[in-house]
Amino acid sequence: MWQLHQFPLCPFSRKVRLLMAEKNIAYELVRTLPWEQGEELCRLNHAGRTPVLADSGRNLALADSRAICEYLEETVERNPMLSGSSAARAEIRRLIALFDEGFFNDVTGPLLNEKMKKRLFFRQPPDSRMLREAMKAAHEHLYYLDWLVDTRNWLAGPMLSLADLTAAAQISVADYLGGIDWTGHEQSRTWYAVMKSRPSFRPLLAEKMEGIQPPAHYALVDA
Amino acid sequence: MWQLHQFPLCPFSRKVRLLMAEKNIAYELVRTLPWEQGEELCRLNHAGRTPVLADSGRNLALADSRAICEYLEETVERNPMLSGSSAARAEIRRLIALFDEGFFNDVTGPLLNEKMKKRLFFRQPPDSRMLREAMKAAHEHLYYLDWLVDTRNWLAGPMLSLADLTAAAQISVADYLGGIDWTGHEQSRTWYAVMKSRPSFRPLLAEKMEGIQPPAHYALVDA
Repeated sequence: MWQLHQFPLCPFSRKVRLLMAEKNIAYELVRTLPWEQGEELCRLNHAGRTPVLADSGRNLALADSRAICEYLEETVERNPMLSGSSAARAEIRRLIALFDEGFFNDVTGPLLNEKMKKRLFFRQPPDSRMLREAMKAAHEHLYYLDWLVDTRNWLAGPMLSLADLTAAAQISVADYLGGIDWTGHEQSRTWYAVMKSRPSFRPLLAEKMEGIQPPAHYALVDA
Repeated sequence: MWQLHQFPLCPFSRKVRLLMAEKNIAYELVRTLPWEQGEELCRLNHAGRTPVLADSGRNLALADSRAICEYLEETVERNPMLSGSSAARAEIRRLIALFDEGFFNDVTGPLLNEKMKKRLFFRQPPDSRMLREAMKAAHEHLYYLDWLVDTRNWLAGPMLSLADLTAAAQISVADYLGGIDWTGHEQSRTWYAVMKSRPSFRPLLAEKMEGIQPPAHYALVDA
């Protein structure tokens, strides 16, 4: 059985969890807090980051969320999330990078740092200037998301893909941390409500990170 | 004909150039400086980053270096650089992430910021504390590289792969900027000398970024 080393607000682990649920792959969760269990995590993944997908029976430990997702796509045919022509797959991968790097660096990463790491690890208050900048950056990203939703069925084209799962995973963490204001982003809000209503998404919405409460709308599928 | 939008010290563009040379794919270079031509670049790639690999004849513009490399691997069979079992491919991709994210964030990115962007764009001197930290981080990464070289033929296993090209691309930019001290890293130095001697590497070593001189050893294959 696969074991996924992660913590509830890791957006990269959420992406892997969404993909595994969509593909109906069984796994169990192992809670790993990189800022507390760094050394232990480094034994599984030299980079010291979550997620790690391990199968001790097969002596296999996969690290890096994109490497893990590519592996799952290659080895489990059910519900492909990286399909189509090579150009279509390049477009899916471009959007994965845009959300895993751009959105994470501008929005999810700063929010996690200010509202989770500072609170749980450093016992410090968040820097309100950083929070404002992250929320402003979120608006810029949501404008682009609006445009994608306006011009395509799903983010990367006609089919639900790993691009949708990646974007929804990042946004869900930002939303949990109070960083998403949907005002003026009806297209994105509608797309995200559809994502939230998928069975693969439900376990994520029900989970809490100790000491950090999400806003009331977070787990509501129609909000 | 492919056009690669890049600048000489972009480590992600260097990775794509190495892959295209190894696979013998013809392309022409288009010089694009993201900090000067941001708007123009954003029309090709919403993220505003290099590299972009475009073919105007086919109305195709691929962005994100990993998406571009996966596309080239899927469409050009010659000299595969992402081959083997799914687990072997996951290991190649893990190392690509380790160098494109870890090494870049700790070493190449800060060096580019301090020694290139501040000089060419902001007309400011580099922050010597940041440079020392980047060089210290480089040592930590080289220790891991030493271990990889000690235990495998190539970084990800028995075959030359995109992991070697990625690591060499990042290191070559850090080396150009004077950030690599090989003392105590004989294994890494030997591996890098082999990489430098490949025909695919020669054009990179001959190129200069205006206003920034590399150290004397940079372009020497046996140094």
